[in-house]
Amino acid sequence: MLAEGVYIVGAGMTAFSAKLHANKTGRELLVEATWEAVKSVDKGITLHKDVEALFIGYFTPEYYEHQSHIGPLAATWLGLTPKPAFRTEIACASSSAALFAGVTAVASGLYDVVLVAGVEKMTSLETERVTEALALASDDLSESKVGATFPGLYALLAQAYFRRYGATWEQLQRVPIKNHYNGSLNPKAHFQQTIGQMAEKVGKKLGVQYKDELDFLKNSPFNRVVAYPLRLFDCCPISDGAAVAVLASGRAARRFTDTPLRLLGVGLGTDNVALQDRADLTSLVATRNAAEAAYRTADISPKDLDVVEVHDCFTIAEWLAVEDLGLVGRGEAPRAYEEGLTGIEGEIPVNTDGGLKAKGHPVGATGIGMLNEVWHQLRGTAGRRQVKNKAETGLVHNVGGSGASAAVFIFGR
Amino acid sequence: MLAEGVYIVGAGMTAFSAKLHANKTGRELLVEATWEAVKSVDKGITLHKDVEALFIGYFTPEYYEHQSHIGPLAATWLGLTPKPAFRTEIACASSSAALFAGVTAVASGLYDVVLVAGVEKMTSLETERVTEALALASDDLSESKVGATFPGLYALLAQAYFRRYGATWEQLQRVPIKNHYNGSLNPKAHFQQTIGQMAEKVGKKLGVQYKDELDFLKNSPFNRVVAYPLRLFDCCPISDGAAVAVLASGRAARRFTDTPLRLLGVGLGTDNVALQDRADLTSLVATRNAAEAAYRTADISPKDLDVVEVHDCFTIAEWLAVEDLGLVGRGEAPRAYEEGLTGIEGEIPVNTDGGLKAKGHPVGATGIGMLNEVWHQLRGTAGRRQVKNKAETGLVHNVGGSGASAAVFIFGR
Repeated sequence: MLAEGVYIVGAGMTAFSAKLHANKTGRELLVEATWEAVKSVDKGITLHKDVEALFIGYFTPEYYEHQSHIGPLAATWLGLTPKPAFRTEIACASSSAALFAGVTAVASGLYDVVLVAGVEKMTSLETERVTEALALASDDLSESKVGATFPGLYALLAQAYFRRYGATWEQLQRVPIKNHYNGSLNPKAHFQQTIGQMAEKVGKKLGVQYKDELDFLKNSPFNRVVAYPLRLFDCCPISDGAAVAVLASGRAARRFTDTPLRLLGVGLGTDNVALQDRADLTSLVATRNAAEAAYRTADISPKDLDVVEVHDCFTIAEWLAVEDLGLVGRGEAPRAYEEGLTGIEGEIPVNTDGGLKAKGHPVGATGIGMLNEVWHQLRGTAGRRQVKNKAETGLVHNVGGSGASAAVFIFGR
Repeated sequence: MLAEGVYIVGAGMTAFSAKLHANKTGRELLVEATWEAVKSVDKGITLHKDVEALFIGYFTPEYYEHQSHIGPLAATWLGLTPKPAFRTEIACASSSAALFAGVTAVASGLYDVVLVAGVEKMTSLETERVTEALALASDDLSESKVGATFPGLYALLAQAYFRRYGATWEQLQRVPIKNHYNGSLNPKAHFQQTIGQMAEKVGKKLGVQYKDELDFLKNSPFNRVVAYPLRLFDCCPISDGAAVAVLASGRAARRFTDTPLRLLGVGLGTDNVALQDRADLTSLVATRNAAEAAYRTADISPKDLDVVEVHDCFTIAEWLAVEDLGLVGRGEAPRAYEEGLTGIEGEIPVNTDGGLKAKGHPVGATGIGMLNEVWHQLRGTAGRRQVKNKAETGLVHNVGGSGASAAVFIFGR
């Protein structure tokens, strides 16, 4: 258990986008996200006076910006110099590691107020080079070196799942259909259209009428195969973005707001990086271990959750996540999705912000981007995507690579 | 103050070398260092049973090993999967960030026993590419992009210092002469010879007799200018290596040893990354802030230290460090070094292990490598370089880049 309580007293993020931030640097994105976080603090905050340290996730700045040593650089741009700052890296869960570092730093008693942040400025490279940068998260000696890319690795997970449970690609399409719908309700999302809206647009251009969203996903030349069985709409996009949160100790939290979120549970987990070294491809050990630790520290069960953010870098990843988090049983995801269990109006809303699929996935920003959604849902400020009956408890689940690492955080009002 | 006490119950490291590890990967170096750490635990430790999480510093694995996502990869190689693991980065102080993450994780009450590690496998690249990888720690927009390299940046610091205090390059040579002497007493050091021994060897080859070490450093063609006024022997070498420590809570420490080291103080600091954005080039703000925090949490003053490890990536950095840590006053380093204050037999022994200059500087391993030296000096196992009168209190000082970040840790018996 944590020696001291940790609270979230502010959160902010940029829009996630492949276009909006084309001419900005990562440091500028951080300033934009932080400014929103500052404005979100009910009773106000003065960064250079109140914040004592900065922890920041950024997966591959070396490739995107020919830059490392991101901690002090970001500190300067946020007006925090000479305060402590360093970077954390755990592939696509890099900002969850920053959140973890911030949580333990506050719980340790060393600081009362810290900033945690995540950023990735991906569109500075061509898609092929982005794919290469992402491949650094796989095992160089057995995966990336022989040409494996992440769509390919997740395609293997999908194949294994389909085979074991007799599930189909058609069933899996409930994931992008739901997430694009949710994204259409989120002004910060990378994609602002439902798949139905896209089907209509594309259909008009091609002189074809798609009878429904599945028909479009199945038959449009637009939805080409990326790595069988995964097609374009099974993959999240390449986005630029940043996300920030302000953490405070119990002593300090009330200085900033009367309605902070409380961190209830925290867990991290790992697995072998290379798929060939895993015992089972239909479940992520790292997620199961992270979830077990988070539920244990929070002393709650999956049934108690009102809103859940999971790591759907590829559609199959969302199915694995809801099973590994215990929201549904093993092999039950296809049926649960057919029944709409995870829709905004469903029993356990999952990825109300559009998920990585539609909200976007600026790798290093994703974990704290998810926390931003829980922040809004639990405070009742999620606008058109607000879940019914104000949410009391929310969970964030962030995965690194093809599942070699995972982080789970649980927050309550 | 930290809510819970944190103790060091084991430490290990590989030799630092440009030759010994040519055919090893970073993960293999980690195994080697960890194995020594395991053997150092007085009452024994079983990694997969006792260790709850891993925090690991590695500055630029993307360049050296075409690999990121080092946390779970290292966890697998150390038998720790599926336990939590992530990487920290703060340039040349990356493993000090790992140590910090481990310290706060234990002090937070979340874990009782964690492993902290650092590694850098540098010799896989040619020197020019290593220089480029290191340059990622400077500001891309104003330094590396226009061709600034680290010898050049530190040369500017040396020029500023010489000008302000009327100090000379000749006076500065006390640093490499001392550190190579210390390195000659350390079987793990990259360089095993005193500068006197090298002078004799080189002299024999060239048919020249150097009258003393300074004569050799000044007049040997071997000691060429790298970036004026810094010459080859003002620069640390490019090394491969790894270093590890085992941290435990007060509850757990006695299970492993009756004589743990206790963490007394901790501090991190930052400064603007680009030299052009600094107010003063003769002192590092980041070090001063980190030291102030560390002395405050430890509630001691520089006078109480028995052994000190400082970040001498270039000779001038050692002078700046001893001043910024308050071991001597501003501008007093030249005289202090002439008087031998920082020798093994001196009043405040500095870099008894040879420092970065002679022990080597596998970037990500350096901070925890320094902790290894304090571990031995405080336990009286430093062999031929053991300070007189068993040391009670030791300090580690680790810098990132040209001083944009710094970490200071103080340990006691």
